[in-house]
Amino acid sequence: MQATMMSTPLSLNHLLERAGRLFHDNTIVSRLPDKSLRRHSYGEYYRRTRALAAALQGLGLQKGDRVATLCWNHHAHLECYFGIPAAGGVMHTLNLRLPPEEIGWIAGDAADRFLIIDDVLLPLYQQFAHLHRFERVIVFAFSGAPVAPEFTDYEALLAAADPDAFDYAPHAEDDPTSMCYTSGTTGKPKGVVYSHRSTVLHSLVGALPDATAVRNTDVVLPVTPMFHANSWGMPYIAVMLGAKLVFPGPHLHPEDLLDLMQQEPPTLTLGVPTIWLAMIQLYDSSLQPGSPHHGRWQLPTGLRSMVGGAAVPESLIRAFGRHGVWIMQGWGMTETSPVGTLAYPRAELQGASDDERLRRAAMAGVPMPLVDLRIRGDHGQDQPWDGTSVGELQVRGPFITGGYHEAGAPPDKFTADGWLRTGDVASVDALGYMRISDRTKDLIKSGGEWISSVDLENALMAHPAVAEAAVIAIPDEKWSERPLACVVFKPGQQATHEDMNALLLTKGFAKWQLPERYEVIDAVPRTSTGKFYKLQLRERFPA
Amino acid sequence: MQATMMSTPLSLNHLLERAGRLFHDNTIVSRLPDKSLRRHSYGEYYRRTRALAAALQGLGLQKGDRVATLCWNHHAHLECYFGIPAAGGVMHTLNLRLPPEEIGWIAGDAADRFLIIDDVLLPLYQQFAHLHRFERVIVFAFSGAPVAPEFTDYEALLAAADPDAFDYAPHAEDDPTSMCYTSGTTGKPKGVVYSHRSTVLHSLVGALPDATAVRNTDVVLPVTPMFHANSWGMPYIAVMLGAKLVFPGPHLHPEDLLDLMQQEPPTLTLGVPTIWLAMIQLYDSSLQPGSPHHGRWQLPTGLRSMVGGAAVPESLIRAFGRHGVWIMQGWGMTETSPVGTLAYPRAELQGASDDERLRRAAMAGVPMPLVDLRIRGDHGQDQPWDGTSVGELQVRGPFITGGYHEAGAPPDKFTADGWLRTGDVASVDALGYMRISDRTKDLIKSGGEWISSVDLENALMAHPAVAEAAVIAIPDEKWSERPLACVVFKPGQQATHEDMNALLLTKGFAKWQLPERYEVIDAVPRTSTGKFYKLQLRERFPA
Repeated sequence: MQATMMSTPLSLNHLLERAGRLFHDNTIVSRLPDKSLRRHSYGEYYRRTRALAAALQGLGLQKGDRVATLCWNHHAHLECYFGIPAAGGVMHTLNLRLPPEEIGWIAGDAADRFLIIDDVLLPLYQQFAHLHRFERVIVFAFSGAPVAPEFTDYEALLAAADPDAFDYAPHAEDDPTSMCYTSGTTGKPKGVVYSHRSTVLHSLVGALPDATAVRNTDVVLPVTPMFHANSWGMPYIAVMLGAKLVFPGPHLHPEDLLDLMQQEPPTLTLGVPTIWLAMIQLYDSSLQPGSPHHGRWQLPTGLRSMVGGAAVPESLIRAFGRHGVWIMQGWGMTETSPVGTLAYPRAELQGASDDERLRRAAMAGVPMPLVDLRIRGDHGQDQPWDGTSVGELQVRGPFITGGYHEAGAPPDKFTADGWLRTGDVASVDALGYMRISDRTKDLIKSGGEWISSVDLENALMAHPAVAEAAVIAIPDEKWSERPLACVVFKPGQQATHEDMNALLLTKGFAKWQLPERYEVIDAVPRTSTGKFYKLQLRERFPA
Repeated sequence: MQATMMSTPLSLNHLLERAGRLFHDNTIVSRLPDKSLRRHSYGEYYRRTRALAAALQGLGLQKGDRVATLCWNHHAHLECYFGIPAAGGVMHTLNLRLPPEEIGWIAGDAADRFLIIDDVLLPLYQQFAHLHRFERVIVFAFSGAPVAPEFTDYEALLAAADPDAFDYAPHAEDDPTSMCYTSGTTGKPKGVVYSHRSTVLHSLVGALPDATAVRNTDVVLPVTPMFHANSWGMPYIAVMLGAKLVFPGPHLHPEDLLDLMQQEPPTLTLGVPTIWLAMIQLYDSSLQPGSPHHGRWQLPTGLRSMVGGAAVPESLIRAFGRHGVWIMQGWGMTETSPVGTLAYPRAELQGASDDERLRRAAMAGVPMPLVDLRIRGDHGQDQPWDGTSVGELQVRGPFITGGYHEAGAPPDKFTADGWLRTGDVASVDALGYMRISDRTKDLIKSGGEWISSVDLENALMAHPAVAEAAVIAIPDEKWSERPLACVVFKPGQQATHEDMNALLLTKGFAKWQLPERYEVIDAVPRTSTGKFYKLQLRERFPA
């Protein structure tokens, strides 16, 4: 027998129409380069987005053509999120933190036809313009300055288009909507291409109460960049549900973010640990009577904060928890749309101690609905979910990539039975909480046993004098490899090796797992997406 | 270009596996016929469900075969919800409130191969057994009594099967999982067949924070029957997210439900207005010092209550609101999986008065994500969303049926461009809140103008002496039709026609809209699903 259900395709266009119909009075706030705030209603947003789509079709955009964006987080970037696919195009977010040569290479690999760029980023564009010729460069006058005549003016383009006459490009639900390149600490970046289907499914799953729990009454501040991993899907979720959005523009320093939170108090924020770590240090210092910022900020009561993109130390969760801010961490990749797991509170832990609950909150989390997850041991066996058995984390699901643009599905990235090999080493406990021990290549093999650099880092960062810690392997004749800890002290503070080792011993590390050596550094080098860039540390401390 | 996403099909089996993996320690409570409670862990549930699937395959179940259920709300029915599709079968929920001849006819139309039935419902089965021959009748010993040898014992079947050796039947996401017949106050009942895809999408949408907002920490009491319209999808949602379930079994009287809420306090309930109306009357009376139930019950603090299946009067929302219970109503049909709209709180109304917010809460609600909704006027035009323009409510989306089992897509049910014609007359306001004025056939045409029977009913039910009111059209020589109000008074109370008319005038009705006549009746006749059965009233009061 056959099901009788309609075959209506999943579509971003439905979400846009829904927002225009239902949420026209709700608000989108964007912080401009001069730090002033610009406000749009969802009604204006809806009309502008359709105008953008109409304009792109007027410029000759064909189905499947890539339109690159090089933009901060703001309303016009959100217009691209829905307007480019509405016209049948594929939005390709370029990562402005990458080296210019890499941006140019990526634009060429994607064969981007048009570029939509913030005027304040034109100097960056000039550095890679010779590597890829865009047929048209459309400049968004984010700063308010006039657009030079050799470029197309985004506002003029929209003003000349008729949103009422626009018709959505027909599409199937598997048709592409957007693409993003992996940050690739190893090898060339590779393009992941999302579809209407994957994006709608990821939005539904990501909005669930046990995920971001977004309601139309929320005020969402996405600090995670819209130019990488879809700002964790929040632009789609917010439009689907009509939540108020507050975009920080280019102002991502803790001081700026705290100021913005005073002006437009959010109920939900999204960001990476680095920024949140710096923010809480600044906030806590502002509470001291002698601080120049004394009394300037008050963290919003009941704020939910999604933090991810790198491991979140328990100390960060505790530090925000003292001010009533709930930190929820997750794990994901560009390849997973990106949310794969979230450390949400579980019924089974309601009677548990604070320490026990914090221990879980400091893990990478539980797989979201529609995400299949397994841990593959060294011999290809499925590891039990016992909290200790480690192996490679592999995932599968309808919003997880099955290959890469032009690169297919290389066997180092995909198993023969079609699962994504994440390159992370992890274990899962009986409640389904996953813990990343390490990247496959960051594990330290000492005397035939593995030492997790991530575990050492998290423990060291709990020391009151330590701001950050990164642990790498150094070669060792006897043990094969030994851990080297690179630590960054908080301003004016320090600790001895003995102090730090003593702390590690109280945290349950064995003597042989303690760092062989400590190096004090000024800052941990990071990739463009905020992850520890251990390759640079390995080059700096080769032995 | 092509998207690179995996083509993993949406599947109920994924949700079941997820529950078994993640939520094994959470609980499913079922109330037995003797009112005692039986508890299963999700871990046991998972194994029993797989055992059921293995057993059905052992009995020769083939892909697409229908397995009927005739069961109350309890754990074994939940096992059928996932176990039958896991084996490749289609669960067909038979509605035990229908006349036996109709049940038999429906089983024949669906060509049900097996029947899974509660032992306490065997007397009902005997009344329609001659109309359709099930190849096998599997009896669930709900009462605990031994199963007669001419039947297959559900427990023995499960005990003999090996859940570990079970393999899911392969399926595509559009393959059928379950079917339900429309209640059909007119015409023959028609079968709606749901798929893996429609059920998973409906579950994701229905669980959103602006819908039922289910978390794994919730305790859900579904009073809405699992034998009609999937208990609003809650069995699927709860398993997907691991929420604790409390099933009321056959005990649906207000006294029983209040007792159950004392024993297992829910955070979320689902029910129809009739039961909730009777419950609040009983509860309020129990607060009187002289009541025999004085002090027996306390409604759970912060309880969320989804009420639907028929219009919810504002007075009901206010009555529960006084005790801190939030009533949220919705609209849906068997054809819409069933949730189509929900009257959830909107950001735009945060500054509005209580009256204004209650006015919206008393409407049918806002379309859910993935649901397209339009109001078609008499001349086929789309009506504006101005809160006053009425027309036929039409819907479209991936969890809305596009036809019926064996009956295709008749033109009185579907438009030429593929929308479902609901038969409801409605308007939508600027915020997207939909208001059902009437069923097409229940509108009263008086002197060329329409009078809404639903509006009159809701207004009359706000009278303190009125328990229920149903308004029908009676023929009138001069005006063509005029309203007749059938009212049920609360015990020991009454009101005059003048009283009730005076109330209607204060509620904004014009003089010509007032009922032509009042009839006092003992109870409003209802369909098997709790809707007013106006056909019977029309027969009783022909003029």
